[in-house]
Amino acid sequence: MKTLNHSLIINTRFSDTDAMQIVWHGNYVKYFEDGRESFGNKFNLRYMDIYSHGYTAPMVHLELDYKKPVTFNTAIRVEVYYVHTPAAKIIFEYKIYNIKTEELLCTGQSIQVFVDLNGELSLTNPEFYDNWKKEAGLNV
Amino acid sequence: MKTLNHSLIINTRFSDTDAMQIVWHGNYVKYFEDGRESFGNKFNLRYMDIYSHGYTAPMVHLELDYKKPVTFNTAIRVEVYYVHTPAAKIIFEYKIYNIKTEELLCTGQSIQVFVDLNGELSLTNPEFYDNWKKEAGLNV
Amino acid sequence: MKTLNHSLIINTRFSDTDAMQIVWHGNYVKYFEDGRESFGNKFNLRYMDIYSHGYTAPMVHLELDYKKPVTFNTAIRVEVYYVHTPAAKIIFEYKIYNIKTEELLCTGQSIQVFVDLNGELSLTNPEFYDNWKKEAGLNV
Amino acid sequence: MKTLNHSLIINTRFSDTDAMQIVWHGNYVKYFEDGRESFGNKFNLRYMDIYSHGYTAPMVHLELDYKKPVTFNTAIRVEVYYVHTPAAKIIFEYKIYNIKTEELLCTGQSIQVFVDLNGELSLTNPEFYDNWKKEAGLNV
Repeated sequence: MKTLNHSLIINTRFSDTDAMQIVWHGNYVKYFEDGRESFGNKFNLRYMDIYSHGYTAPMVHLELDYKKPVTFNTAIRVEVYYVHTPAAKIIFEYKIYNIKTEELLCTGQSIQVFVDLNGELSLTNPEFYDNWKKEAGLNV
Repeated sequence: MKTLNHSLIINTRFSDTDAMQIVWHGNYVKYFEDGRESFGNKFNLRYMDIYSHGYTAPMVHLELDYKKPVTFNTAIRVEVYYVHTPAAKIIFEYKIYNIKTEELLCTGQSIQVFVDLNGELSLTNPEFYDNWKKEAGLNV
Repeated sequence: MKTLNHSLIINTRFSDTDAMQIVWHGNYVKYFEDGRESFGNKFNLRYMDIYSHGYTAPMVHLELDYKKPVTFNTAIRVEVYYVHTPAAKIIFEYKIYNIKTEELLCTGQSIQVFVDLNGELSLTNPEFYDNWKKEAGLNV
Repeated sequence: MKTLNHSLIINTRFSDTDAMQIVWHGNYVKYFEDGRESFGNKFNLRYMDIYSHGYTAPMVHLELDYKKPVTFNTAIRVEVYYVHTPAAKIIFEYKIYNIKTEELLCTGQSIQVFVDLNGELSLTNPEFYDNWKKEAGLNV
């Protein structure tokens, strides 16, 4: 079956570090989001695409496993894997690597749901999301 | 003439630090904002108060002078001084102290203007702001 | 058996919000850390306490479940629960509530390990940590 | 006389926005720093270059003027201008543009000083900095 994934290069920022002189663990949440938005730009699944169809996609679950620390001004590669599910959810998995050493720095997962503009959780896939899956070549 | 000011105690966060093991200079912008919002809570000049009268108050100028570094888990006092001006602006000055040592850490200034909900800059004081000044005991 | 927990009141910041006009999901990582440091201040398990015994305690796992969104300038209560484990780990669970509505906003868990100053992972409990547990009235 | 400048493209992040649905004003401090580090990578004036010569370069003054708001997922260009001064300082000016519209979003200035590893402010230019200027083709 077809799978969708994407990767993005980021340079870690000085302001991303903490007093341990490494990237603060909370900032990986930003790297995941950067990867997700970059995936969205490539596959037309941006916040704005979702919003234009009358939905938002709030985060309901986030999980991070830290493998190695990284200092600032270091090029990292954020790999984003779309996880196919019949549920009315957007699930991504992530792997972040230090480009120079190819060390695995962090892995993780995020789960988003669909909420319509009245604030109601969508229990089934919104029509636009089924269409998006079809266009992306995924089974619905 | 009457002056308005307010102070707020904050504990610096580990996530506020950078690789120099001190609070990252950009995070003082948050401390200023914390002080400003706390001032707003006390004197009814919150973002929401402004918004409920049909305006937003975007930042147009910000200035910071750094005097001493500070580490994390340190109690600091953010002093906020409202600067009275006839112009259609909200001007604040700030002083941040290390509570324990009474060292002055940072000073600064912010200037906000009024923009109505059509995105038009207000060249004169919005009525609600004149009223707010009167209620606060300031000359209009 | 004795349990250790602690709670902390935080006011959500304007700068914590995102374009959905709610607190950005990544900022809950800061609230967890605020809670953890506040726990550390109360029970003498700060970063600095750990460091003074020759260890750091890097995060290896973080998990967040989002229940309800929250807007800014809202008082929230971060509840921190120390999870007793024989493993050489520091495990916390978190619950964050909207104080006014008592709605549960977010739950989560964090796992930290001990690394000595040569960068070696500690497979058994450092002595100071066993002592800390005893003083805290926990079984070792 | 020769001038040094550099520019960097950044995509604004969702997590950079605030509840006004625009990039939060404090995040321009990060864009300035991104530009400064990118300048440093190009001209060998990174934090690490400075540190390797026994100095740090703390920020002492920062100034920002906001011209236009910008939303997220927007490509911006950070232009960094090195300001030549005989004083023992590193001075940069910044201009940030929306790439698509060529609107000027923000201008600013930063001033850094040199502090040696004993914490003493350097009143004259460190030798390495004079050498750096010469190599860069600037008058000393």
